[in-house]
Amino acid sequence: MRKNTPPERVRVSILGASGYSGQELLSRLTGHPGAEIVHAFAQASAGTRVDDLIPSLKGRTELVLEPFSIESAAQCDAAFVALPSGEALEAVPRLLEKDVTVIDLGGDFRLKDASVYERYYGRRHPAPELLERAVYGLTEWNRRAIAGADLIANPGCYPTSVLLPLLPLLKEAIIDAESISVSSMSGVSGAGRSATLELAFAEVNESVRAYKVGVHQHLPEMSAYCRAFSGVPTTLNFVAHLLPITRGIYSTMFARLKREHDVSALAATFERYYGNEPFVRLLDGRVPEIKHVRNTNRVDIGFTVDLATQQVTVLAAIDNLVKGASGQAIQNFNVRYGFSESEGLA
Amino acid sequence: MRKNTPPERVRVSILGASGYSGQELLSRLTGHPGAEIVHAFAQASAGTRVDDLIPSLKGRTELVLEPFSIESAAQCDAAFVALPSGEALEAVPRLLEKDVTVIDLGGDFRLKDASVYERYYGRRHPAPELLERAVYGLTEWNRRAIAGADLIANPGCYPTSVLLPLLPLLKEAIIDAESISVSSMSGVSGAGRSATLELAFAEVNESVRAYKVGVHQHLPEMSAYCRAFSGVPTTLNFVAHLLPITRGIYSTMFARLKREHDVSALAATFERYYGNEPFVRLLDGRVPEIKHVRNTNRVDIGFTVDLATQQVTVLAAIDNLVKGASGQAIQNFNVRYGFSESEGLA
Amino acid sequence: MRKNTPPERVRVSILGASGYSGQELLSRLTGHPGAEIVHAFAQASAGTRVDDLIPSLKGRTELVLEPFSIESAAQCDAAFVALPSGEALEAVPRLLEKDVTVIDLGGDFRLKDASVYERYYGRRHPAPELLERAVYGLTEWNRRAIAGADLIANPGCYPTSVLLPLLPLLKEAIIDAESISVSSMSGVSGAGRSATLELAFAEVNESVRAYKVGVHQHLPEMSAYCRAFSGVPTTLNFVAHLLPITRGIYSTMFARLKREHDVSALAATFERYYGNEPFVRLLDGRVPEIKHVRNTNRVDIGFTVDLATQQVTVLAAIDNLVKGASGQAIQNFNVRYGFSESEGLA
Amino acid sequence: MRKNTPPERVRVSILGASGYSGQELLSRLTGHPGAEIVHAFAQASAGTRVDDLIPSLKGRTELVLEPFSIESAAQCDAAFVALPSGEALEAVPRLLEKDVTVIDLGGDFRLKDASVYERYYGRRHPAPELLERAVYGLTEWNRRAIAGADLIANPGCYPTSVLLPLLPLLKEAIIDAESISVSSMSGVSGAGRSATLELAFAEVNESVRAYKVGVHQHLPEMSAYCRAFSGVPTTLNFVAHLLPITRGIYSTMFARLKREHDVSALAATFERYYGNEPFVRLLDGRVPEIKHVRNTNRVDIGFTVDLATQQVTVLAAIDNLVKGASGQAIQNFNVRYGFSESEGLA
Repeated sequence: MRKNTPPERVRVSILGASGYSGQELLSRLTGHPGAEIVHAFAQASAGTRVDDLIPSLKGRTELVLEPFSIESAAQCDAAFVALPSGEALEAVPRLLEKDVTVIDLGGDFRLKDASVYERYYGRRHPAPELLERAVYGLTEWNRRAIAGADLIANPGCYPTSVLLPLLPLLKEAIIDAESISVSSMSGVSGAGRSATLELAFAEVNESVRAYKVGVHQHLPEMSAYCRAFSGVPTTLNFVAHLLPITRGIYSTMFARLKREHDVSALAATFERYYGNEPFVRLLDGRVPEIKHVRNTNRVDIGFTVDLATQQVTVLAAIDNLVKGASGQAIQNFNVRYGFSESEGLA
Repeated sequence: MRKNTPPERVRVSILGASGYSGQELLSRLTGHPGAEIVHAFAQASAGTRVDDLIPSLKGRTELVLEPFSIESAAQCDAAFVALPSGEALEAVPRLLEKDVTVIDLGGDFRLKDASVYERYYGRRHPAPELLERAVYGLTEWNRRAIAGADLIANPGCYPTSVLLPLLPLLKEAIIDAESISVSSMSGVSGAGRSATLELAFAEVNESVRAYKVGVHQHLPEMSAYCRAFSGVPTTLNFVAHLLPITRGIYSTMFARLKREHDVSALAATFERYYGNEPFVRLLDGRVPEIKHVRNTNRVDIGFTVDLATQQVTVLAAIDNLVKGASGQAIQNFNVRYGFSESEGLA
Repeated sequence: MRKNTPPERVRVSILGASGYSGQELLSRLTGHPGAEIVHAFAQASAGTRVDDLIPSLKGRTELVLEPFSIESAAQCDAAFVALPSGEALEAVPRLLEKDVTVIDLGGDFRLKDASVYERYYGRRHPAPELLERAVYGLTEWNRRAIAGADLIANPGCYPTSVLLPLLPLLKEAIIDAESISVSSMSGVSGAGRSATLELAFAEVNESVRAYKVGVHQHLPEMSAYCRAFSGVPTTLNFVAHLLPITRGIYSTMFARLKREHDVSALAATFERYYGNEPFVRLLDGRVPEIKHVRNTNRVDIGFTVDLATQQVTVLAAIDNLVKGASGQAIQNFNVRYGFSESEGLA
Repeated sequence: MRKNTPPERVRVSILGASGYSGQELLSRLTGHPGAEIVHAFAQASAGTRVDDLIPSLKGRTELVLEPFSIESAAQCDAAFVALPSGEALEAVPRLLEKDVTVIDLGGDFRLKDASVYERYYGRRHPAPELLERAVYGLTEWNRRAIAGADLIANPGCYPTSVLLPLLPLLKEAIIDAESISVSSMSGVSGAGRSATLELAFAEVNESVRAYKVGVHQHLPEMSAYCRAFSGVPTTLNFVAHLLPITRGIYSTMFARLKREHDVSALAATFERYYGNEPFVRLLDGRVPEIKHVRNTNRVDIGFTVDLATQQVTVLAAIDNLVKGASGQAIQNFNVRYGFSESEGLA
């Protein structure tokens, strides 16, 4: 059962505070008038002052990273869980037991089907009943459920960049749901803050490569929520690429029109869905660029139609650590606790 | 009429020698035992020593960049034309008149249809009869014609990375020619060596953007030669992206299988076409990486099949300045003059 | 004569608003409660909406870039001049005539000696009387004068990174003023937003080079203000390097100790000068990193002493576009108009 | 005792073949007419085909990486040891016992003084007698000794970039040996191929930092060989910086002139020492750039004199993996076995 009357300032903890998403949460929540970070948990870096980890917080926080303790976490109203997939499986049920509202940034509670989880994440799911209970945190499409949730599964970075542009086109039956191909490119921070040869500068720099082709765990997430939000069963082809940049995702989507639809009709459709959304920018005849969304919670969406071939191309850019992770998590926190949706995200 | 008995060393000139492709030609042809660079033409940098432009040539050349003169060029057997598209239109006919064999690295003589040229290049073609005469220099698919050509139109960088992987699949009717989507990413050198704000470091770095969506001049080139070499009319969707790396192209291609075909059948097909090709590497179950083809004339090709959705994903990486430009030009030069195809390309 | 009672919100214009420093000013002043940007001047991009140039300002500004007009500028209390050196020479006197307070981010009014200006900037100074009148805007060392100035010459990016760490050591006679060598490295944005081959991505990437060795215009600026603020005539050796990053300056300084002084004595000296400064961070036993100052107005200073050789090494990092340009300009604006010094700089 | 009559092709093994220097050795020695790579040792990657590790060797080698065995190594005439410092301590004595000539690319045998080794490398040296026996492989300054050596200690990357430019100036008593300050910047590959958070792309990219200030193990190496080759005891200040590039070192050196010496006198001195050296390029009035030495075995040297302050500034660029490691190792191999010094280095 969740706490019904949030205090003036919601007391929060962050699990995985030293990772890239964790640092982004620390930076943004420190300035959030409705949140008080009470505990910042991080195993390997426990003992480090937060303002040593993030020098721009100098003078704004006295927090010190500490090892996780459920007792400490239980003192808070909410927990942001920014752990690698798998590690949240143990922490989240314990937090829920203590009536702590959970916003999980990882992949452990996004899928509804435990067998799909097992296939793509390579482990059995120990708490399949929580899969049902979790609310998928694609803010623009799921506000009502998020407002009442005690377990919010924040969307993956790639799915965020793909679902937002595709859902209006699927829901309006503008594109053929069997014909969608997605080529996405991500900066290196998307892979987390860890010591691996694959992510070493000299290995990544001046190169590009696809990875996890056909087996990426974000693929079933995209298909499932295309269907869940649009009502249309959807088949996606998806290739993720690793780019030599720190932050940002760029998704290029190809689909076939189901019926005649020119670019201004498309623009009108997008406008109808997103015209009032503070974090969606529709680009009329221009292309998104990663640099324009860096450090923002915005998705930039561009689109073109080739009338001869009846094909539509949709382009989207986000910052994987903001709209693709911590920003959207705060957006969901704002929805859940009744703050202005832009709080902490300007 | 072309010269029939090439001298022991073919005398060549390079037009546009100070650009990135021009420099690559200078470096590689300097070590080519069958080529003698007699003139290196470059307008703006005329007067510069070649070994000042390219310090690694110190001690290996005494060439000085000079302004173009048809008289000087006419002293040579062959000319490599590495000018921006449009500028070759004037030079090439004059070279041909002087019986100089031309290998044009630009886009002015690749298309067969002058009206398509006009639409995509934004100018009328002044010598449409040469479009017919030009031989498309996709070496692996056009050796016989290249060997007898006096005007070789070297393929574009994107088309090279797309045609080589797709042609066997189209020719063998393995994929549906109406269902192909291509997402390509290129390093900045592909845009040439020029002073523009769009290509400034601070504009390109830490970003990605699509460009020329739906209007890229390489699109009709790909469609035309998919059909020309496979016999199958082909519709392609194509989006090019600019990456913050210096060299390299990565192309990710999506297509639908026309008939059941698993990954080993696919591997066998590719092996049949390319098993003996020195510059094609087939990756069994691995993905290409740009760093593995950098500074080489090789295309690396990877592929997967999703049997459930009957989709094939093909990945290809090349160095845009080598296999995508100067390397393939030298490969064609070798074919044309009877040298070993790898000469100057190791 | 300057306006004595600033209005509640100071009305400002920005000259050179489309450059990197200009954009930084636009972004930061838009959120500044004491400033109202009334005009954003930019020649080449006139007509562009500011929120198209800087998408993160969407919804926060209706400004459109316009060509410079002295009449428009004269409607404002203050002008930020972010023009390339040389171009400010014409605008600044006209602004002063109209009683507009000027904060010039360029180099045209920093030096006191017109003959030195002529030698290093390669042109005669048309208004040497303004050199005398200008107040050098090194905030931490010149607050009183800045508060009363009508022409503030904002320091160069390199001098900011060098003067702040060296001045306490010179003033306290800790280091030998004849023995100082400075090796500085700057990101590409320091060279401005312009279309030049030298700054093209493919020319800058994966390389480093020194430039303007012995003739850099920031050298006399550093020497002059070392002397002006410390009272000690100073000789500096200085080499600037261009780095393949977008933002940031790193300065490494070598000097000989004049008297025994260990690292904790040094720390105490720095602490005495800068312990209460909001934009100076002293690193005890750690080294600065550019990423830690990026997008901040802070200078991070590290230092070590080699007692055997009596040498001190000082390291400093700043963001060239913030503390090295627009941030310090706003800091000076805050001092000048009596706002909290951190306003617009968090 | 070393083998006296080398076979036509020297049989060599490489220890640490999968690292960056090891890969560079594999690539270059594969094309070396006087070397036959018989064994390529690598622990973690044992079992990997060399042409999978380095695709450009496809068709040119059948080697497979194998775990180190002294019996296999003993079948060879020479061993290139490209192990991290420390790991060579065990292997090298065993190789020498088997009469295998050793070229060690690491730091374990460079210093003559075991106590200095202990201070800077943090461990006792187990075979101090080998420190005496080792010949320092700064090719241009030590050819005679190298030709007769059975243990060649290849110089560090930073010392190579510093000693080559400074030695003529020290030997000719042109600069004050007490006044030298060196600021060096290195690409990430200099830190080796390893999985550490510090070298992760997202940590290194868009940043610069000094490291090991005052305690870098290359500092005593530089001082010792400044003295050894010039005869003049030398005190150096040295700061190393990590740059966001893959390859390359840039060293900027400051020193005081001991006697009047203008830039053309300096040029004459350098010319006298290096005019005939194939791997030294003297830049008259221009600055070195890392991109111009990348993938070459060359050092590019630039220099200026400020007559007013009697200061000289010297700039040098090398590729840390070639002249700073594997290239110079091969150059030494060529000297040792009587091959042309440029073999394998073009």
